[in-house]
Amino acid sequence: MSNDPPVVDDGGSLLKWAMPHVIYLDAISAVPPRPAAIAAMQSFLTEAWGNPMAPHLAGDRPKAAVERAREQVASLLGADPNEIIFTASGTEANNLAIKGIAAAAGRNRRRRLIISAVEHPSIMSSTRALEAQGYATTVLPVDSTGRVDPTRLHSALTADTALVSIQAASGEIGTLQAIAEIGAITRRAEVPFHVDAVAAAGRLPIDIGAMHIDALSCSSSQLGGPPGVGALVVRRGVRLEPLTHGGTQERGRRAGLENVPGIVGMGAAAELTRAELPSLRSRLDPLTARLRDGLKMKLDGWRVTGHPTERLPGHLSLVAEFVEGEALVMALSRDGLAAAAGVTCRERTAWRASPALLALGFEQSAAQGAVVFSLWSGNTADEIDRAIPLIAQNVMHLRELSPIYSARVPKV
Amino acid sequence: MSNDPPVVDDGGSLLKWAMPHVIYLDAISAVPPRPAAIAAMQSFLTEAWGNPMAPHLAGDRPKAAVERAREQVASLLGADPNEIIFTASGTEANNLAIKGIAAAAGRNRRRRLIISAVEHPSIMSSTRALEAQGYATTVLPVDSTGRVDPTRLHSALTADTALVSIQAASGEIGTLQAIAEIGAITRRAEVPFHVDAVAAAGRLPIDIGAMHIDALSCSSSQLGGPPGVGALVVRRGVRLEPLTHGGTQERGRRAGLENVPGIVGMGAAAELTRAELPSLRSRLDPLTARLRDGLKMKLDGWRVTGHPTERLPGHLSLVAEFVEGEALVMALSRDGLAAAAGVTCRERTAWRASPALLALGFEQSAAQGAVVFSLWSGNTADEIDRAIPLIAQNVMHLRELSPIYSARVPKV
Repeated sequence: MSNDPPVVDDGGSLLKWAMPHVIYLDAISAVPPRPAAIAAMQSFLTEAWGNPMAPHLAGDRPKAAVERAREQVASLLGADPNEIIFTASGTEANNLAIKGIAAAAGRNRRRRLIISAVEHPSIMSSTRALEAQGYATTVLPVDSTGRVDPTRLHSALTADTALVSIQAASGEIGTLQAIAEIGAITRRAEVPFHVDAVAAAGRLPIDIGAMHIDALSCSSSQLGGPPGVGALVVRRGVRLEPLTHGGTQERGRRAGLENVPGIVGMGAAAELTRAELPSLRSRLDPLTARLRDGLKMKLDGWRVTGHPTERLPGHLSLVAEFVEGEALVMALSRDGLAAAAGVTCRERTAWRASPALLALGFEQSAAQGAVVFSLWSGNTADEIDRAIPLIAQNVMHLRELSPIYSARVPKV
Repeated sequence: MSNDPPVVDDGGSLLKWAMPHVIYLDAISAVPPRPAAIAAMQSFLTEAWGNPMAPHLAGDRPKAAVERAREQVASLLGADPNEIIFTASGTEANNLAIKGIAAAAGRNRRRRLIISAVEHPSIMSSTRALEAQGYATTVLPVDSTGRVDPTRLHSALTADTALVSIQAASGEIGTLQAIAEIGAITRRAEVPFHVDAVAAAGRLPIDIGAMHIDALSCSSSQLGGPPGVGALVVRRGVRLEPLTHGGTQERGRRAGLENVPGIVGMGAAAELTRAELPSLRSRLDPLTARLRDGLKMKLDGWRVTGHPTERLPGHLSLVAEFVEGEALVMALSRDGLAAAAGVTCRERTAWRASPALLALGFEQSAAQGAVVFSLWSGNTADEIDRAIPLIAQNVMHLRELSPIYSARVPKV
């Protein structure tokens, strides 16, 4: 086997670039993997690669490693290890929560889903898929900062509500929701409460017990772990039907050979994240402020979106007038800066207005100009200082190309 | 980031063992990963870790790598790269095929599923989940060698048949099905034909065009790639609804951040497998024969299961009388030999009779004595010669402990 030729080179048509030269301000689409998390995976790729379900010595170490990772992820979220279901992504965790809890509740004729207007596409489209099966969705509006009013949620609850699903934080506009307050309401009403914490887990402290959360989704790639792994926490006693049937992996709640190296990487990343969490905001928010203030000095015609204070650490979202967000992101990419134009999980080609920004009351044209700068623990003040003029120059250049801008703004 | 402490050690309570000292005859539960496939993954863990959906430079190389892997997997199966949907496992691929094709066909009131009696639990339980939604399943019987009679399938086809799903080969009894013949029948009847090729892909030549296959499942771990990845091939024109909703990854057929390193590993493994395939049977079958004949010399009271010639390369399945298969596998494990007691995806604790062996006509007690020795390209004649006395000794020891055996067999 050791004579196998390497089959993937890194030249040819693949773009050559080294991350150190890139100003990476797109942590919300993937946090750079933590070297120790990647290192932890290695022996489960090369050595302890057995099937954890195998009742022999090749299964023992992989099985123990998965259980250790379960403890590490549970610790980050205030959960019990038995409450963790490993999935292949945050998106799969969201699908499993919405469809799995709805299917169990549907047997008792509870067929109403309540979500907010700023949920991730995986939540939005899971509820749409259920609507085709006879479920109904209530979409709660948000205010101009992107927040759900908990009293409004309270009024929306009905006797046939199967599930309330509200995100902890929006990766697109940064806004945090009042999760503990919403959790108290749903718990009193005895309605299952799912939280999409894909953007929040690893950036904010989460305790599913204190926050009255019944189910919570998170993603390895948002913790600095490898892609291809996520987790759904399901509190003991919450009824959920599996989406994937077959073997009895994950206590019968998600069949399929476990992604052992990925799960080990996610567990290690969760442990490292937990240690970093208390200092993360104080490290990142000064950099975000520096970026915001620097752009304010250089540029006019842009607005910060989302909530001014109740927001993700290191998250700056804005709309730049007379600029297409995607065009700006592509232009910045050519200058070595990575940023996002709203949600990454959308079509690469679609130059569409952000549904979340429309929900906040932005007009169509502004909602097309969304840009998100999301920082991670490796960003430096020097990077921010280099980013500011790059962003300002590119916005100005794109505006010069815009016929609408030229028509509206008199040349000096 | 480089100062992160390593969080996973490999000592402590985890069993220490090194694969070189183990006689690994359980390739059907996981093929030992190919070093070159694992090597190919590395730069997508440490360097090119961006989100392939990101419209900036960090997304470009991961996106190109996923497309390259799509070509590599497609080449192995005679498919077009656009026909490959990457999943998290062979089990997920089977679920997506059964439920996704059934959901699309169900809209046209086609609600009958036809499978065989020896399908994997992921097929069996996916059809059971659909039965709860108003679908009906026809389970085709098999003969004593485990084969489906294609004429019997032909008679079973109805106007409301949504899907026929027959495995290419059984991982449990090794028997191959007459896939091309069945495919010709389903194609004439214009009924979608899915093939669970998780055990077959990488061990047998497959051409979805020549075999008239509409959808086919396979797993990275069966090709010597990493776990956590699988693929479903869906021929152009076959209607399939996604199970996971959200982003537009995999052309809208499977949402969620792609497992880029895993996909790269699977692609590399597929390419290496394709090169190895022509010589695999001639390399493995003499070793399987050596094992079978060696056991025949040393031991009585056991029967080979499955088809005598139409079987997976390197696959020897048997029942040992008066022995529980799982007890034998655990005893062999203590002696450093890895084997399987039927399907690995079943409960670790359940000492149950194999449904596949019952379908072949074995009585309950014999079906509990199933053992599977499945070889991979790294096995040697020396390993087989060491395995034979280990297996014989352990069978004899377990029989001595069996009160039924003692009562039946007079001591000499």
